[in-house]
Parts: sequence; structure tokens; C-alpha cells
Amino acid sequence: MNTAVILAGGVGSRMGVDRPKQYLLVQDKPIIAYCLDIFQLHNNIDKIVIVVSDEWKSYVEECVEKYGITKICGYAPAGKTRQHSIYNGLKCINENAGETDVCIIHDAARPLVSDEIIDDCITGAIEEDGAMPVISVKDTIYQSSDGKSIDNLLNRSQLFAGQAPESFNFKKYFEVHNSVTDEEIGNTAGSSEIAYRHGMKIRLVKGSERNLKITTIEDLETFETILNN
Amino acid sequence: MNTAVILAGGVGSRMGVDRPKQYLLVQDKPIIAYCLDIFQLHNNIDKIVIVVSDEWKSYVEECVEKYGITKICGYAPAGKTRQHSIYNGLKCINENAGETDVCIIHDAARPLVSDEIIDDCITGAIEEDGAMPVISVKDTIYQSSDGKSIDNLLNRSQLFAGQAPESFNFKKYFEVHNSVTDEEIGNTAGSSEIAYRHGMKIRLVKGSERNLKITTIEDLETFETILNN
Repeated sequence: MNTAVILAGGVGSRMGVDRPKQYLLVQDKPIIAYCLDIFQLHNNIDKIVIVVSDEWKSYVEECVEKYGITKICGYAPAGKTRQHSIYNGLKCINENAGETDVCIIHDAARPLVSDEIIDDCITGAIEEDGAMPVISVKDTIYQSSDGKSIDNLLNRSQLFAGQAPESFNFKKYFEVHNSVTDEEIGNTAGSSEIAYRHGMKIRLVKGSERNLKITTIEDLETFETILNN
Repeated sequence: MNTAVILAGGVGSRMGVDRPKQYLLVQDKPIIAYCLDIFQLHNNIDKIVIVVSDEWKSYVEECVEKYGITKICGYAPAGKTRQHSIYNGLKCINENAGETDVCIIHDAARPLVSDEIIDDCITGAIEEDGAMPVISVKDTIYQSSDGKSIDNLLNRSQLFAGQAPESFNFKKYFEVHNSVTDEEIGNTAGSSEIAYRHGMKIRLVKGSERNLKITTIEDLETFETILNN
């Protein structure tokens, strides 16, 4: 059983508009609906959990109805951080989960993920403990422990920028969350980070520049351009 | 004496247009001219060297004439890598350089650098051995030695993305280039990297999201929007 956890709990937007980015309309359809379509239509996804703030829950329920998303198995409340939201989503899956079940964590604001990336992530989570799509890092990254001067060089060929969906053996990943403090969950920068830190082996799979998270007006324009082509 | 080295040697563009990005026209003026204006008008910049490919040299000379850039003290040929181009630019400065002279390496395709960043870089190069503007890293960066699975976590608060201009004590920086192999120059990912690797202390100064390198159509649109405001 493979369950997607779609993170739609964010309440802000850097775009100076009146709603969170995942609910912006593109060609009259909210961004989250494009994302849900992909998981609804994907053969290897069995169920979908949506993490959403109370304020937007009825709106999301209407979207689910309107766009025929039938794989929904539950809604979870948004947490105080992204990783808390993930934990809430996992709790929704827990009741009937088997040893080999996989959870696939995705952002509602990444509506351009390919079927292939989803497949690769699921395979990685089955064959190892988890998987994450990555792309190369474009910036030149320097390390500084005090933020004042360079004190280490990083080998750029060994650096990767993480994308979503991050996929995990559900039981192992859920157990990690049950075993750590609330503070550690809050201090997690990426959902694979907490898994790796607690001994899970995380495979890197090929991500895509196209699988962008819509954050800025420029991202939104890129998405519209891709839709039009 | 503070000499700016403006790197305009790139011959490609990821934008599918007929010319390198630094020569694209924005409001009828090439991007490089916006960049040269900033250094021409800056009180702490004494001279400017331009690194340019033979093919574009006459075009750049016309720009220098047309936009009244009077601080030009020389042109250097483009090298086979960015760092080779920098070395060529440094050779142009060498003849009369004093012990405390500073070189300021900037990209012609970064036409939005602020006077303050230039000042901070010069001060850093005088007080230490060099300085570089940085911004925080937006991506979640993972480390993998084989590209197949995560094998180290990086503390995101210690990671910084380097921008330009990178500024150095000229004599020390030039000496580093004279002392290393051609291969090492070619394998340099950032102009501060080679300096740090050879014992120079590099200060990090506050960069800006606005100080972007124009690489994509979206960057070009951002630049136009900023010009219009």
C-alpha cells in the first residue's frame, strides 16, 4: 500500500496575494488540484492524505469533490512546522499500515512532479528505507561556522538539492517520529534529514528542474507557460 | 588603488537567443553597460579591466565609448574557464600594483549590484585578504559522495551561496594564481575558493537576492521589472 501525504498546510505566500500559494488559481483551477490529479491518476498510488489548516479545509474538500479525487483516505491538521504537518499526516495512515507500506510526502505547491519520479521514489523506499529526488546545486556553496568568514570548502560534485516527493518505509519513518522529541521534529530542515539521522538509508533519485515548488511570481509564470505548451 | 575586473568573456546563453546574456539589450541598452555604469560611478573604484572574447571586443569598446566609461585601463582576453578569465584580467593589473591594492571581480551579467556591497567587499579585502557577498541557501542541501545515497548532513545555518563581486588583496591573489597549475585554476568552482584553499582569509559580507546573475528569461524579466520601478 502506497499512501501519498499532500502537504497543503502552509498559510502564507511570498507573492503578496490573498491566499496561500497552493490555492492560487491557474487557468481557473487551484494549484493543489493539479497536484492531486497527478496522484489520483498514478497507478502506484493507493491512497491520499491531505494535510490542511482548519481555515482551508472546506475549500480543499470542495476541490476534492469537484476534481473527482477519489483516493482520499483522510485529512490531517496542519502542524506548527512542515515536519509537524508530516507527522500529523503519518498519524492518519498508521491504523492499518503493513510492514512494507510506503508513504510519499509531497508539497501541494509542486504541481509538476512526473509519474517517473513518483515511481522511482516508491521503488527506492521499497528497496532501501527511503528515497528523495535531487537536482544539482547551481550556487557555489561555502561553509562558515560563524557566518563571518569561510572556514571550509565543500565539494560541489557531492552536493545535492532535495526536492519532493520524499518517500519512506512507513513503519520505520513513523517510528522515528514517535521516538524523538517535539523539538527535534521542529528542528528538521528536510523530511529525509530526520530519517537519515535515525539510521534510515535514503536513496537519491533523479529529480527535475521542472518539478519546482511554486513560491514566487516567476515560478507561477513558469507553471503557466508549461501548462500552455 | 581599487580595480574592478568585469567578466564578459562568456559566449553562451541558456536563453536561446543569438548573443551572450551580458550583451542582451534591456530598454535598448546592453546589460554590460548597466554593470559598467555602476563601477564608473562608484567613488571607491579607480580603474576597470574588461575581460572579453575577441569576437565581442569591438562591441564592448563601442559600449565603453557610448556610455562614457572613462575608468577603463585595459582589456584582457577570455580564458577557457571563468577562473582563467580572472587570471587574464589580473595580468592586466599587475604592472603597477601596490601591496595594498584591491581587485574586485564582477560578472557583467550582474547589473544590480549595490554600491554598499561593493564598499563592503573593498573594506573586507583591505581588512582581511578578501571578501565575498553571500546570501542564505534556499534549497535543502544533502551530501553524497557517490550520488546514490545520503552520507552526510550539512548544517544549513552554516551554508552560504556565494555571489559577486569577490574582492581580494591583489598581490596575494595574483601570487596564488602564479603558484598553482593550470589544471587547478580550471578546477576552481568559485573565485574565493582558490583564495581560501591557499591560505587567504575571506570575509563574508551581506549579499542581496536582488544582486542576481541574469541567466534565464525569468531573471531578465525581473531585471526589467526592477528598472521600471
